[in-house]
Amino acid sequence: MLSAREAATAACQAKYEAAKLTTDQKNKALIQAASDLRKNTDKILEANAKDVLKARENGMAESLVDRLMLTAARIDGMAKGLEDVASLDDPVGEVIGMKKRPNGLLIGQKRVPLGTVAVIYEARPNVTADVFGLTFKSGNTAVLKGGKDAAYSNQAIIESIHESLNQCNITPDVAVLMEDNSRAASNELMKMNDLIDVLIPRGGAGLIRSVVENATIPVIETGTGNCHVFVDEDADPEMAVNIIINGKTQRTGVCNAVESLLIHEKIADTIMPALAKALQEKNVEIRVDDNLLQYVDGGIKATEEDWGTEYLDLIVSMKTVKDIDEAIAHINKYNTGHSESIVTKSYANAQKFLDQVDAAAVYVNASTRFTDGAEFGLGAEIGISTQKLHARGPMGLKELTTTKYIIYGDGQIRP
Amino acid sequence: MLSAREAATAACQAKYEAAKLTTDQKNKALIQAASDLRKNTDKILEANAKDVLKARENGMAESLVDRLMLTAARIDGMAKGLEDVASLDDPVGEVIGMKKRPNGLLIGQKRVPLGTVAVIYEARPNVTADVFGLTFKSGNTAVLKGGKDAAYSNQAIIESIHESLNQCNITPDVAVLMEDNSRAASNELMKMNDLIDVLIPRGGAGLIRSVVENATIPVIETGTGNCHVFVDEDADPEMAVNIIINGKTQRTGVCNAVESLLIHEKIADTIMPALAKALQEKNVEIRVDDNLLQYVDGGIKATEEDWGTEYLDLIVSMKTVKDIDEAIAHINKYNTGHSESIVTKSYANAQKFLDQVDAAAVYVNASTRFTDGAEFGLGAEIGISTQKLHARGPMGLKELTTTKYIIYGDGQIRP
Repeated sequence: MLSAREAATAACQAKYEAAKLTTDQKNKALIQAASDLRKNTDKILEANAKDVLKARENGMAESLVDRLMLTAARIDGMAKGLEDVASLDDPVGEVIGMKKRPNGLLIGQKRVPLGTVAVIYEARPNVTADVFGLTFKSGNTAVLKGGKDAAYSNQAIIESIHESLNQCNITPDVAVLMEDNSRAASNELMKMNDLIDVLIPRGGAGLIRSVVENATIPVIETGTGNCHVFVDEDADPEMAVNIIINGKTQRTGVCNAVESLLIHEKIADTIMPALAKALQEKNVEIRVDDNLLQYVDGGIKATEEDWGTEYLDLIVSMKTVKDIDEAIAHINKYNTGHSESIVTKSYANAQKFLDQVDAAAVYVNASTRFTDGAEFGLGAEIGISTQKLHARGPMGLKELTTTKYIIYGDGQIRP
Repeated sequence: MLSAREAATAACQAKYEAAKLTTDQKNKALIQAASDLRKNTDKILEANAKDVLKARENGMAESLVDRLMLTAARIDGMAKGLEDVASLDDPVGEVIGMKKRPNGLLIGQKRVPLGTVAVIYEARPNVTADVFGLTFKSGNTAVLKGGKDAAYSNQAIIESIHESLNQCNITPDVAVLMEDNSRAASNELMKMNDLIDVLIPRGGAGLIRSVVENATIPVIETGTGNCHVFVDEDADPEMAVNIIINGKTQRTGVCNAVESLLIHEKIADTIMPALAKALQEKNVEIRVDDNLLQYVDGGIKATEEDWGTEYLDLIVSMKTVKDIDEAIAHINKYNTGHSESIVTKSYANAQKFLDQVDAAAVYVNASTRFTDGAEFGLGAEIGISTQKLHARGPMGLKELTTTKYIIYGDGQIRP
């Protein structure tokens, strides 16, 4: 078995070769990998069945088994994902802002791969193919540390990808799956400053916290979303209800779902009956402050803890505010910097909300569910950054690159 | 005395006020601060004299005392620095790439301050004013943790700045100097994920290593530079000697100084006599591989350790290579990702070097000493990033900002 360090070393050593690949070479390999995944569907399903059997024996919850389980359609989806990435523009090589300095030096910033990207994820085998596609197209090499519950599936998927790479005369070390699935191996990976350029954790709050606390290599934090909708004094009630129902119920287990509502006290009488009814028709449990209790049949009183909770479930918290300033202050205190929306007809309040709310994505009159690489037009995403360094919001191919200054001279020395 | 946490809390709470300041308000406060620094010159010099006296009593080396010591001219230089920052464009508020999506959503990225920036630095009091100027102009608040040897000086400088801020009706909490100078306070600061958005260490390799190893908040690594010049087969010998002498001797204690030379084996005969002579006339100690020993009177044999050493002194290491590929591989193995230069007449080799050398700044036919915010046209810099996330190379005002997605809708929900 390859040790964690051996796996990372292999990927690190392949990074100069990966950076030199042309867009054509990369696209051909992605198309080949898509085709081979489809060809190897039976093998992958067989491996996946072993993982699923073991998971059920170990008593894994069925909602998690669902994330682990592959079908022919899901494998086709992975293949289609690789084809989509092949169709995206290659960000590598673009030169930004080249300028001539007074001394004649020509200075610009060239977009280049980050180098070696490590991704730690949970038992979702599709992430193996997704991360390969995005890191490979952006000229990086990847160290993949998947959840041990998906070990057989991940192995089968990476074998298929390696088969494709070999066929295209590209070293399979551009995508190395860590065979050592232990927590110790994860912790070791988080400290390999000499081999890994950036670490992206993809998973729940526990995984992300562990990475932030233990990693010495640069990390891009992704994920948790305690997202709000603020219904302003003069909001269109129907639009507000639509946006809230969409944000809360269109999909509940995702980071851009709405978790908390702020209702301007002057619109409560108008909007609350319809809003409470619409939420309850969708089986949403409503936790409210004292002011709103009167509008909600069977409403539960919210506690301080509710304001900071990402439910990822059919539950919503709700609070009255006396004005937009209180709404903004509440959001900036309790949010996780993900997605926030105001429903308003006021030009001034729309601009104020966009200016002052501190989050990766701030909306006027739209559902927070749009925070997503495909919806934002990036084509695909490796995650949604909720930190401020390097990338904020959905991260696509460009966010998997860095720049270097390139300087053309003709003998200049510094006086 | 304010604890580390109290200091950081004050700066964190001021960040929304700082982000709202207009460019005019910020520029006026910077001009006022420059004027007050000049007005308070005597007070600051008095405080500085106490630091210098104590430092000499404690046996501080005179080269470090020189960095600690202020003069009226140096204080004027700090004031001039603030005026320069006032004259730079405000990066905050720029909207990048706003596009209409098929569903009518208008999505763009708006440039916003990072929030609260912590800077840990050593006994150079001018950094207090420099960091204030850059973080303030970019709409951030700052937590300043200066070296304890400069405590009196830093206190006098920050008091002058606070006087100016008060006069402009801006909270002094936009620039908080940590009064607790202990190492424990530094270590506490490095883990304040709830209060600090980014930490920038400014100082020697020891400080930077300590920050990288201990911080849980996002860090921008700055500084160390093991910079190379590669003299290609067909280089203009005079240009090569000029660039090397400038890079090595124009200033030795700086991160963009040249530390190591790679000489194409076919040009050694031509260039070495003049190069060795020029270096020795500048009192540079030359450490060479076996091939080059014959050209250097009193040359010292380089060891493996020399290839990886940033001397920051009048010493240079020198090695022959058989071709550009060996030169690039050597640089990518031993460099610190700072600045690298090739001297060549070959179009193909110039492009190859720019493409394949992995560093923040890659030069053709120019001195590495140009890697600097002012020289690159950024106006001023808070440091030179040698990491790949967020910023690479000299960091100016723009690098002290992040973006957020702003989205204008008219009721869109996700289907």
